[in-house]
Order: sequence, then C-alpha cells, then structure tokens
Amino acid sequence: MAQRFQTLPGFRDFFPDECAARNHVFETWRKVARRYGFVEYEGPVLEPTALYQRKSGTEIVNQLFCFQDKGERDVSMRPELTPTLARMVAARQRDFRKPLRWFSIGQFFRYEKHQKGRGREFYQFNCDILGEDSVLADAELIALSIDLMRAFGFTAADFRIRVSDRNAWVDFANRHGVAEEAIPDFLQIIDKMERTPEEKVSTQLDGLGLSLARVRDFIASGAEVSAAIREILSDLDSRGVGDFVEVDLGIVRGLAYYTGPVFEIFDHGKGMRAVAGGGRYDQLLQLIGGVPMSACGFAMGDMVITDLIRETPAPRALLETAVREEQSVDVYVVLADPEKRGEAVALAQTLRLAGVRTLTPLTATKVPKQFQAAEQSGARFAIVIGSEYPALTIRDLRDRSERMSRTETILEDLRDA
Amino acid sequence: MAQRFQTLPGFRDFFPDECAARNHVFETWRKVARRYGFVEYEGPVLEPTALYQRKSGTEIVNQLFCFQDKGERDVSMRPELTPTLARMVAARQRDFRKPLRWFSIGQFFRYEKHQKGRGREFYQFNCDILGEDSVLADAELIALSIDLMRAFGFTAADFRIRVSDRNAWVDFANRHGVAEEAIPDFLQIIDKMERTPEEKVSTQLDGLGLSLARVRDFIASGAEVSAAIREILSDLDSRGVGDFVEVDLGIVRGLAYYTGPVFEIFDHGKGMRAVAGGGRYDQLLQLIGGVPMSACGFAMGDMVITDLIRETPAPRALLETAVREEQSVDVYVVLADPEKRGEAVALAQTLRLAGVRTLTPLTATKVPKQFQAAEQSGARFAIVIGSEYPALTIRDLRDRSERMSRTETILEDLRDA
Repeated sequence: MAQRFQTLPGFRDFFPDECAARNHVFETWRKVARRYGFVEYEGPVLEPTALYQRKSGTEIVNQLFCFQDKGERDVSMRPELTPTLARMVAARQRDFRKPLRWFSIGQFFRYEKHQKGRGREFYQFNCDILGEDSVLADAELIALSIDLMRAFGFTAADFRIRVSDRNAWVDFANRHGVAEEAIPDFLQIIDKMERTPEEKVSTQLDGLGLSLARVRDFIASGAEVSAAIREILSDLDSRGVGDFVEVDLGIVRGLAYYTGPVFEIFDHGKGMRAVAGGGRYDQLLQLIGGVPMSACGFAMGDMVITDLIRETPAPRALLETAVREEQSVDVYVVLADPEKRGEAVALAQTLRLAGVRTLTPLTATKVPKQFQAAEQSGARFAIVIGSEYPALTIRDLRDRSERMSRTETILEDLRDA
Repeated sequence: MAQRFQTLPGFRDFFPDECAARNHVFETWRKVARRYGFVEYEGPVLEPTALYQRKSGTEIVNQLFCFQDKGERDVSMRPELTPTLARMVAARQRDFRKPLRWFSIGQFFRYEKHQKGRGREFYQFNCDILGEDSVLADAELIALSIDLMRAFGFTAADFRIRVSDRNAWVDFANRHGVAEEAIPDFLQIIDKMERTPEEKVSTQLDGLGLSLARVRDFIASGAEVSAAIREILSDLDSRGVGDFVEVDLGIVRGLAYYTGPVFEIFDHGKGMRAVAGGGRYDQLLQLIGGVPMSACGFAMGDMVITDLIRETPAPRALLETAVREEQSVDVYVVLADPEKRGEAVALAQTLRLAGVRTLTPLTATKVPKQFQAAEQSGARFAIVIGSEYPALTIRDLRDRSERMSRTETILEDLRDA
C-alpha cells in the first residue's frame, strides 16, 4: 500500500492557478519598486539564530523555526528580512551610493497558530531606504506603498495609510514620568490597545502611572503632535496623494527596533486589516553590523493582500486576467496528418525560437480533440499541418477566420493576422 | 561593542548585482519554459522528512537539513522538488488535462561539503511532463533544455546533451545474471564509474559477476542499444537539434527513482561539468501518492550555469546587459531650484504612474552632483526643473542634446525624444 503524504500545517502548495496569482503579486511589487528606482536584493533563508535574538522583539523569537544544523550551529529559518538587510548593508556599505533604495521579495517562516490570512510560511515584499536622515525618505516609501495599491487596482475607497510617530509616544511617556526602561513595555501596550479589553489596558497603564483617558486624549490630538508627521503629510500633498493618508497615533508597530515615524496600509472596507507596515529604524544597522546608518522601510505580505484582491472587483479582474495570460500559449500547432509529425515539431521549434509560446501534441490524437485542446490552451491561433504541407492554415480561434500560410513566411503571417 | 554577524557557510547573500544576475537566469528559465507551453507551480520549502526517505537515494537523505519542529514533527528543508511534485500531482491529478507540462523555480538545501559550484543552498529550475508514456515527451524536454542553453547565448561549441537509458543497463544486468536486488547497486557503480579509480570499479563489478571490459564494450556499443534512444534521436533530428545530442551510456543519474531514458547537459569546454540532468521516473507517483502515472523531467541548478555564463563571452555579454538594465531607471528629475521640490516629486509621481522608472533626490543637493547621480542611475534622460517651471528641459544623457517641454506634455515629449 502506497504511503500518502500531506503538506505540513500552515504551508502551501502553489498549483498553477495559485502560482500565477502569486506571480501577479510578485510582478506588481517588482514593477512599482523599479518605477521608484529601487534595486532588488535577497538574503539567505537560513540565518544564525543569534541574528534575531534581542533585535526583533520576543514574539518573533518565540515563533522561530530554529534548530541545530549538522555542524552544531544554532540556525533559524528567517522570520523577517530586516536583520539580514542590516547585516548585508553594514558589511558592504562603502560600495554603495547613499541613500540605498533596495527591495526584496522572499519567503519567511513563523511557527504560529495557523489561521486565515496567517500561515507558517508567507512571502513578503521588503522595501527600504538606507542612509537618509530626512523623513522625506519615509514619505517616499508611503508614496510607493500607495502606488503599489493602485497598481493592484485599488482606489481610495478601498484602503488608507495610517501614519504615526513613535517619538511622539516617547515624548509623551517622558512628559508623564514613565521610566526610560519601561518605554518598550509602554509601546507594546499602545500597539495592542485596539485588540485588548479596555479594563486590562487601564490596569496596564495604571502600572506605569498613566490613565487611559490621557492616552486617548493624546491619540485624539492627531497630526499636530510631531514635526516629522507634518513634513511627511506636506510632501504627500505635493505628490497629490494626501487623500490616502490619515494620522493615527494608535499605530505603533510591534517590532522593537522602530525609532521614528511608522505607518500601516489599512483595508478600508469591512475587514480593517493591516495590509503592510513599516517605519524608521535608525539604530538597527549600528546594533547588527556596527555601522551607524539611518534607515526606514516597510513590508507587505502576500496573504492579506491576495485575500483583499480576491474580495475587491477591480483588483480581482486584473488578477484573473494575469492568471489566464500567464497560463496561455500563443499558438497551437494542429497535426491533421499523422505522417507530418516531424514537420509539426520542426514548425513548433521555429516558432518557439522566435519567442512564440507554442503547443503541439506529443503523440497523434484526433483532430477535433486537438482543436479542443487548442481552445483550452488559451492560444489565439491554431496552425494546421495537413497533407497540403508545406502550405499551412492559420485559424484565428477568436472569430474562426482562416488564412493560408507557408513555413517560410509563418512568422510574418502570424504577426499580420 | 556591536556584534558582527556572518552568513552561514554555504549560504549566499545576493547584493543587487548578484540578484540581477540571478533574475536573468530565472527569467530565461521562465521564458523558455513558457514558449514550450509549460505552466509554473511551487511547493513548500519545508516538508515531512518521510517524503525523502527511500525515495531519493541515501546520499540525499544523509544531506538533509532536518529537525523536529515545535509540534514534534520530523521535518526537512527540501533537497529536491520531485517528491513534492509527485505528492501534488497525485493529490489533484483529476483536475488537470494530461499530459501536464509543469515547471518550477525554487530554492533547495543540502548539507554537504561546501565547494565551488556547490553550496548548501541553491536555486533549481524543474521541468516535468506527467501522464505521457511516449518517449517523445523525453525528446520534448531535451529540445527545451537545448533552447534554454541557446537562450542563455550558448552555441553547439559550448555544450552537449548526453542521452542514456537505464533500461538498457537493466537489460544488460539481467542478461549477465546480476540478481534483481543488486541492480540498484550496479547502477550506482556505473553512475560513479567516471570518478572512481579503475581498480575499485573492477573489484565492485567482480562482486556482481561482471567484468569491466564487458561493461566498457557495452558503453562503446552506443546508440543501437535501445529503441527509446533511437526514437528520441529521430525526433530531435526532425527539430533540427540532433547535432547537440550524443549517446553516452556512462550516464545513469544518481537518484534512485529513474526508470528509463536519462540525460545530462554537459559543458563541452574544459570544465566538462554537468549543467542539468533528468530522466523518466514512471514509478514515483505510484510510490508517493498511490496514483500510477508516467513522468519525466529534468532540473538545472543556478550555480554551475551561472559560472559557465560568466566564463563564456556571448552569454556573459547577455548577462551583463540584463544586470545593467535591471538596475537602471529611465528618467532622473534634476531639482535645479530647491524651491521647486514639491513640483519635482509631483512630476516624478506622474512619470511613475505612467510606468516610467524615475529617480529624483529626496533632499536638495548641488546640481552637478545631481547630474552625476543621473549618469550613474543609468537614466537615458534627465528632466531639469528650474526657475522657469512649468517649462522643463529634457536632456538626453547619451548625446547631451536638449529640448524644452512642459508638465502637461512631458510623457509625449519623452516618447518622441
């Protein structure tokens, strides 16, 4: 009896339809990043576990796929890219003109509870500007994230960017006598506030000598709290994308290493999910690589955005077109005379060498069955090879019109058809 | 003192130049596979360890990055894709028209001695035809592999396809009284023969009741030994690519699951390295998924092919062009009047929305420095925003010619420039 195997929980198989959808997301990420002059990089999927300890916050470290390799090294499948980026940039920062504009598309792994929109593996787009102190870099990333969403087919009705500033919270904490060493805990409380029962938040804030009312007043004070936020908003207004942005001090972002403005892309529909997020992390390059360099960046996972695309009509239509196109060929060579198989594969070879995506049956089947396969292949044209070879028939599968051709002129005739 | 982190031995950082080179290899794989009507899929990077036991040969199993996950499952980072493919196809084979033509591009992991052309991680192109008994499917894969090499810029002077047939060796073993259960060992001896001292091979064959001379005579007998090989060669002749192919019975391919014709792409220069390889594996889908289905496929890693591209002038030139193009923008917006920063980012936004890859400085720098940055960005055009705004100057960075434009007509003017 044969053994049956299954995918591990939280891991995905990408059958062709799903892989084409994934590729549509990847290509949109890549296309928009390149329009902003970003260049692509990639790091290893496996890293020393120490790279993630004390850098990424305890939550991520508890979720590591970590083990000892055959050389007794403590290693982890990467849960995020930023520590790797910091290591890479610190190692070779002299080789690159500042600011660096880098993006990456790769896979990440977290051993967490398997639920909708959250697997144990996911793909993530990471986009960072390094070596630029000005928060105009943060604004550039926000503009890029808005264009990403528009490239997927979303409009202002579908999403918003929520901008905040961690420094505004640090100032607030200082003004209200929160001890320096309690500030990370304080930021964690604010980060989880929306998802935590009010009473619990109240008790937690009490412990730091703060009241919930005072925190809420501060959140309500909005845009006026930080020069950084004002500068970012003004820049985005110049770009004509100010309408996509709102200030929301409730956003803190979980990761421990953020040091300034932070932002999230939010699903503006019923879901209210975070689609992407990021911020400024001016200390991490020093911490990881010993090189002081300012930095800001954001990341977008593939799972929430793909759900959102499938739920929203215009982005879904773009996705479906891309999925169909990716799996289509241009031409199907129909072998009407089984004696001409050699000629059919020779013709297919010619077309393919010229860049035409071409199918032809490997073994002779009935002609109606071949035309059926041609329709299903997404081909625009069928080319029929029969007893009249080297004369060929080109059939346009959209309107069934036909024209004659010959092997010598087939490429030109296809172009004109 | 900051801690310095390093990449694990055998793992690679892809800085932008290397990532662009990687992408050139990926895009060439993808482009040629699509010309042959193959569709892309992908499986998980982490799989149950049992998926690889007794399927892939002991060598691969000893090289697994394997561990227990937090749920006490025995898991492995995948060393190859074929068992995953067999699992996926067996699970949903009724949903797909046969034969399936599937390809994949992904990363794989083997804990082996770190050496040139062989890391502990590598990317691999996998390309398979499933559900087709005819060896014309094997011929189609060989034709595809030849077109891959040609798409990279290689010619018949650079590489050869060596074709063999495992069944010819099984017949040989049967004719010479080798016990059924000793045949896998026998195939391993043949596989390693070229790299093993003659005396040792002689002793090993003696143990099976065979002589080295008899084995060598059989290898010398070449093409005549198998109907499958004759059919493949005839098909490749029809396609006009027969010159790329030679029969070499010394090729057996290490993996335990091959059952018929096997082939390798060989570097025909001084290196004589295997660039890719594959074959028919008609039993594996039954073994993994309980569904009988014939199959053949091949894989090409990224490391040897990239070395070979860099060593060979024409492919190297194609690679360098692709690397340069991938990291270039189209337009650099020069901010000649620092007061006009808002107008500069607005113009950049307009260009980017129209698909033009555009850079503009985040903060004001001296104009000559901006022109220098424009040259280094690979931009074809600089657009100068100065005090005469909304009038703009378009400078062609190739010949320094200039023409005037305005924000309203900039896209048309760029197109005509």
